Amino acid sequence: MKRLKVSHNVIRRLPRYLRKLDELTEAGVGRISSSDLGQQLGLTPSQIRQDFSCFGEFGQQGYGYNVAALRDQVAAILGMNRGFRAILIGVGNIGHALMDNFCFSEWGVCLVSAFDINPALIGTSFNGVTIRGMEELENYLENNAVDLAVLAVPREAAHSVTERLVACKIGAIWNFTNMELTEPGSATIVENVHFSDSLLSLSYYMSERQDEEAARAARMAKKNAE
Amino acid sequence: MKRLKVSHNVIRRLPRYLRKLDELTEAGVGRISSSDLGQQLGLTPSQIRQDFSCFGEFGQQGYGYNVAALRDQVAAILGMNRGFRAILIGVGNIGHALMDNFCFSEWGVCLVSAFDINPALIGTSFNGVTIRGMEELENYLENNAVDLAVLAVPREAAHSVTERLVACKIGAIWNFTNMELTEPGSATIVENVHFSDSLLSLSYYMSERQDEEAARAARMAKKNAE
Repeated sequence: MKRLKVSHNVIRRLPRYLRKLDELTEAGVGRISSSDLGQQLGLTPSQIRQDFSCFGEFGQQGYGYNVAALRDQVAAILGMNRGFRAILIGVGNIGHALMDNFCFSEWGVCLVSAFDINPALIGTSFNGVTIRGMEELENYLENNAVDLAVLAVPREAAHSVTERLVACKIGAIWNFTNMELTEPGSATIVENVHFSDSLLSLSYYMSERQDEEAARAARMAKKNAE
Repeated sequence: MKRLKVSHNVIRRLPRYLRKLDELTEAGVGRISSSDLGQQLGLTPSQIRQDFSCFGEFGQQGYGYNVAALRDQVAAILGMNRGFRAILIGVGNIGHALMDNFCFSEWGVCLVSAFDINPALIGTSFNGVTIRGMEELENYLENNAVDLAVLAVPREAAHSVTERLVACKIGAIWNFTNMELTEPGSATIVENVHFSDSLLSLSYYMSERQDEEAARAARMAKKNAE
């Protein structure tokens, strides 16, 4: 696969392409032009062509994209076929929700174990995943191939657990703690899930509409007064 | 406040600016140039100036930005001072985690009530927020100002609850169900939280590093063979 340094924005769009292509497949669409795909995603056709050109040539001029082939290519670019193995740390509300409702395997990731400090949870299994005690973490990581830790511990434990993971040379952390894990001067890749970013975007759009409605009301009032 | 149609990408960056400005304030930084700010965020200075120019003039040529003032402006642009009121629907794992760990008020949103179908939860309070039965939803929305519903019900309930909310003319939905809520042909603004998008970005960066390591190993092997 061609792999150049690709901008963060392009990478952020790839999962959206994947979702749309899955949707199209489900709807029985076999082929789509960059302009139709763009319209459905709110992007320009040239943006779409440019995004995919980062990874090689996918479409055929005048024929559009083969939906199934493009879907497989995007999945491969995203590493969904690499069999990455993950552990979950912290089986509280968020951790439990992830074990319960989030289908890791759908995204090519295998959840191989979970860890917690709660004696009532340790030794139990959930959806086929065993929950181990935190004291077993280092030993487990030494004896099992793990690519990724899903961090769902309480905020106050975030830094100490991160230090333990980094000391074990974990490759990546998917961080749900709402704590900004500053680059720990290590090779660990950190992806922070910031619920607040999403809420604030929504808040922006709500504000925008509020302003539009106020402006419309003001215009109406002015018109009525004339 | 100046408000033009601003691109989605700019809006997505605003919460990151806010977090960085909060961090700078905490670190006692009073003033910052667009180039320093850019460096800390991985953006070019001109991108930063361009982003802020969408909302008016903030910086002073040669003097940089006043961190506290810029922070307040960004917060205002994001609508954090508008007192938006939210209800939570579904107090399962995710809903519980949001009530427990997510500080709505920190982002200017007031969580005024929660709803669930579980009789064991109905009538109880959590962090000062009362949990009501789902049958009270319409009546509550009729008698209380609510701007936003946080949707944390199981996937299979997502569509039916959305229909009820839209029928009540709810202004916005913050969707945690992992179901794509297609624009319901209504004025409701939907913000989907896709955990998978975040996981797949991480998977991309893990794959990229794997490829780089493989390439390095191949170069070494070739060199050793020569």
